[in-house]
Amino acid sequence: MRAASTGFAWLLPLVGQIALAQSAPAQDAPAEPAPAVEAFKPASSNQGGKEYPQVNSEGRARFRIVAPEARSVRVPEWGGIDLTKGEDGAWVGTTRPLDEGFHYYRINIDGADVPDPGSKPFYGAGRWGSAIEIPAEDQDFYAVEDVPHGQLREVLYHSESTDATRRCFVYTPPGYDEDTSKRYPVLYLQHGAFEDETGWGNQGRANLIMDNLIAAGESKPFIIVMDNGGNNFAGGPRRGAPPAPGGAGGRPPGRPRFDFSGFAKIMTDELIPFIDAHFRTIADQPHRAMAGLSMGGAQTRQITLANLDTFSHIGLFSGGSIAADDPALADPEAFKEKVEVLFVSYGSRENTAAAKANHEALEAAGIVNTYYESPNTAHEWQTWRRSLYRFAPLLFRD
Amino acid sequence: MRAASTGFAWLLPLVGQIALAQSAPAQDAPAEPAPAVEAFKPASSNQGGKEYPQVNSEGRARFRIVAPEARSVRVPEWGGIDLTKGEDGAWVGTTRPLDEGFHYYRINIDGADVPDPGSKPFYGAGRWGSAIEIPAEDQDFYAVEDVPHGQLREVLYHSESTDATRRCFVYTPPGYDEDTSKRYPVLYLQHGAFEDETGWGNQGRANLIMDNLIAAGESKPFIIVMDNGGNNFAGGPRRGAPPAPGGAGGRPPGRPRFDFSGFAKIMTDELIPFIDAHFRTIADQPHRAMAGLSMGGAQTRQITLANLDTFSHIGLFSGGSIAADDPALADPEAFKEKVEVLFVSYGSRENTAAAKANHEALEAAGIVNTYYESPNTAHEWQTWRRSLYRFAPLLFRD
Repeated sequence: MRAASTGFAWLLPLVGQIALAQSAPAQDAPAEPAPAVEAFKPASSNQGGKEYPQVNSEGRARFRIVAPEARSVRVPEWGGIDLTKGEDGAWVGTTRPLDEGFHYYRINIDGADVPDPGSKPFYGAGRWGSAIEIPAEDQDFYAVEDVPHGQLREVLYHSESTDATRRCFVYTPPGYDEDTSKRYPVLYLQHGAFEDETGWGNQGRANLIMDNLIAAGESKPFIIVMDNGGNNFAGGPRRGAPPAPGGAGGRPPGRPRFDFSGFAKIMTDELIPFIDAHFRTIADQPHRAMAGLSMGGAQTRQITLANLDTFSHIGLFSGGSIAADDPALADPEAFKEKVEVLFVSYGSRENTAAAKANHEALEAAGIVNTYYESPNTAHEWQTWRRSLYRFAPLLFRD
Repeated sequence: MRAASTGFAWLLPLVGQIALAQSAPAQDAPAEPAPAVEAFKPASSNQGGKEYPQVNSEGRARFRIVAPEARSVRVPEWGGIDLTKGEDGAWVGTTRPLDEGFHYYRINIDGADVPDPGSKPFYGAGRWGSAIEIPAEDQDFYAVEDVPHGQLREVLYHSESTDATRRCFVYTPPGYDEDTSKRYPVLYLQHGAFEDETGWGNQGRANLIMDNLIAAGESKPFIIVMDNGGNNFAGGPRRGAPPAPGGAGGRPPGRPRFDFSGFAKIMTDELIPFIDAHFRTIADQPHRAMAGLSMGGAQTRQITLANLDTFSHIGLFSGGSIAADDPALADPEAFKEKVEVLFVSYGSRENTAAAKANHEALEAAGIVNTYYESPNTAHEWQTWRRSLYRFAPLLFRD
């Protein structure tokens, strides 16, 4: 039996928001008020000098919004947190303990969804908005350490197919500018739906993860290119119209469920040639990887499997897996020769059944592949930070 | 008579906000409602896909906030715009015609100051918040054009004096990575008070201004370094305690009114050596410039005049000027030999009397210097974009 190989997981954040917006807050709110008032500290995701939101050692988040004339102030996430107004005109509310890592959220003031003025801005859920960082036990791997740092470069390039100037971010590893005779492999690394090319550098902390891995000698230095994969896809569901769950339906055989052909063309015909022309890459298949999270994983799956002469390393983070009877595996020996690394990951709180089944089926078929499950995380950035941290050391080991 | 050489202009945005917050909105609001309803278009500073805020050909801004349960929605800027609630639960309000260029603003919902969810985030006024771009007649000079683009690089470095990892942004001109034998002059370019190192790249559009100037052959290519000048300064007024206007008071002779010594030490002892070690600079005084806006101009004035063996080109944008009897000019011939370019600019809506007087007094003393006045702009980014656009072509002409 073939397990579903490409899911709709990248729609989950959106569907979740719609569901939350429609839910009755009183019923879904935490069952009891937070008991721990001590040890709340400003979140590391706050703007400089901002005391709120705060987090404590249990992983609870506490919000505070000064809105003296408001009728109601809520945080719609996590079932809906109703903030309570104090004597000072400030509204305060506390969540249940949250998963470690990074969570998007909003403030709703009298029906208006707005960013929290205490949070730094992050692009996700289709807008520049707020997020809170819950300290994680393993947070050192993405911390700013006193190690040699690479650069995160904002790069503009012209796209013929869209007749537009596009923006990508390029991570160059420490030392890139020092030895200008050295050339590097490249990882193309994609964000999820309703996110953009800023995601991996801001909330993903990809540059810090790589700086730390390289300083520890755990990863080869390589270039990372983060482009905008778009938030629309032809032939598939659009915002506001989620698909029916499961089932391939009446899709013609061989036609991909989602058509990322516009982005695929940019990637193969424009972005890769631009990067190879403007950075000191090793411009061949053995030294080119692609990975992505959620929708970016689905794009990675589709683009790499259709271009195995271009890519040799594949990473799917919460973005589907590859079934043993996938047409790309019709000639297993050819696949094994071309694909150096196949890495699939999910958070433990996601539906991982298909990915695990496919991992085992591939192993049984003699196709070496890696499955990683991030403990106690969902379809969120902590899963994807951990995925990059485990994927990168596998790359370009010659 | 000596005209005041270093003003408090960088406090104006803050003082203005305090004043506006205390003013009665009804009295200060525009005298009449905006008549022009046609031709409003989404502002170019909006997030992708956001229809509001909008601007029209008169330079009016129109805001729309969905807040069905709110009691009042206001934009505190421009004297205070009271938005009016429509049948659909959305609040709408329109400004008087605004100056061309870029303006910070906030939304106030029932007493809560929050970002407008329609605007991209920009750091200014001490927070990540909203801004609106009013189309300008000369906007092509900072537009995204199909020309060769430089890169805007996020760079981390270790600072010994503060025992911290600091961040700066570095613009490298088009072609920097192609001919790795070529070396470049450097401009150190500073933001204003309550802004940070992101200002010149985001709202200042320094990279686009340089790309366009270089493509037109109007500027030499050079590196630009944008660091964080801090928002506090020893020995001077602090937030919430504006100084008495004018007058040097009881300041001991020779002691600078504002002490930027912490940042000056970072600049001369840490940042410049780091940049010279990690970028292909021409690491000498003739090929090093410094400029800044508002507080950054005051820092530029203080740091360059104290280090004329380090800097040869000086740009003060709405950030003071240099009087003919300044101690740095005690030996005019030495000053003329060391200072290749002295450029002072203001917006025409600022108090320009001292700068003009100083410009003329220096010219009379035989010290060639440039004074530029941005037409119909105030202490805002359009003044500083135009200043960079006119300053850059004067630099490093050999």
